[in-house]
Amino acid sequence: MKISLGVNNCLTPTPTILCGANVNGKPNYNTIAWIGIMDRALISLTMERTHFTNQGIKENGTFSVNIPTSEMIVETDYCGYVSGEKVDKGALFESFYGTLETAPMIRQCPVNMECELVRTLDDLSRHEVFVGKIRETFCDEEYLTNGKVDFARLQPILYITDGSYWRLGERLGKLGDFWKQLKKES
Amino acid sequence: MKISLGVNNCLTPTPTILCGANVNGKPNYNTIAWIGIMDRALISLTMERTHFTNQGIKENGTFSVNIPTSEMIVETDYCGYVSGEKVDKGALFESFYGTLETAPMIRQCPVNMECELVRTLDDLSRHEVFVGKIRETFCDEEYLTNGKVDFARLQPILYITDGSYWRLGERLGKLGDFWKQLKKES
Repeated sequence: MKISLGVNNCLTPTPTILCGANVNGKPNYNTIAWIGIMDRALISLTMERTHFTNQGIKENGTFSVNIPTSEMIVETDYCGYVSGEKVDKGALFESFYGTLETAPMIRQCPVNMECELVRTLDDLSRHEVFVGKIRETFCDEEYLTNGKVDFARLQPILYITDGSYWRLGERLGKLGDFWKQLKKES
Repeated sequence: MKISLGVNNCLTPTPTILCGANVNGKPNYNTIAWIGIMDRALISLTMERTHFTNQGIKENGTFSVNIPTSEMIVETDYCGYVSGEKVDKGALFESFYGTLETAPMIRQCPVNMECELVRTLDDLSRHEVFVGKIRETFCDEEYLTNGKVDFARLQPILYITDGSYWRLGERLGKLGDFWKQLKKES
């Protein structure tokens, strides 16, 4: 039987990421999981309007996405709990910069993407939705298998909207591996 | 060492879902994984402009999100490969409707959300990005634990942008479980 749950966002899990931006010229990192893929190069990040990071994103028109491993769960949880206004979160990590020059990235995160802000959606929600174009992706050599990011090795921290963190499970197969079974049956 | 991968969207995995819409008065379902969470009630779905489903979303201003289990991988893969223009994908499932009346949902999927279209972003990408407000969420009774959707039981099909399907792994803990460890250390 179908039970009605009211409004309950089940479009989940999503990866938990550390969003980086320079605020007043200094790197700051904020943990978020309200994210989206819009196309191959386009992503969205949602943040509370009051977040310190938002200032930096608007100031520079750039930000970064840093993907922590499950082993970085303490720092990841921490960067979601404390504000950059009170704590220097940049000091937790070693930062580096790419071609955009103003989007700080975390060296300790195996995967980093530097992004250019292309749109801010501020009339849809109480929150701000930043749409960014990925300009460059970086990956630590040891997390690549045949030149591709190895997500089984990466072990990103998945987030479910009920407020829980999860691991990635096993690989089921690839796109197009399964549909022909149905064609044969019908 | 950080290796540059060009533009490589690693904001992944995301859940693979079946998007439902009535096209010419008949239910049609399309598989997508380029999705986003914008806030507690707001989501985004990206679809190729040429997709049959897009017509129905625009016609009715409504759509649904249906979350298949890993056991439904054949049907899920299939609905991403064949077009509703050529095949009656509605015939694969039993459809039901909620309060919006025009957003068909799949009874076989344990979780369903009916959504109202609130924005179409069509100038950002070669694709269309539909932003929807969740109006109601439904869940099969047997997938609820203490009144909440049990994602370990649901076993959604996760999608990684390299074109692969994955399972959800184990639960690591909940938001706020970890950050105090860092506070103690510092």
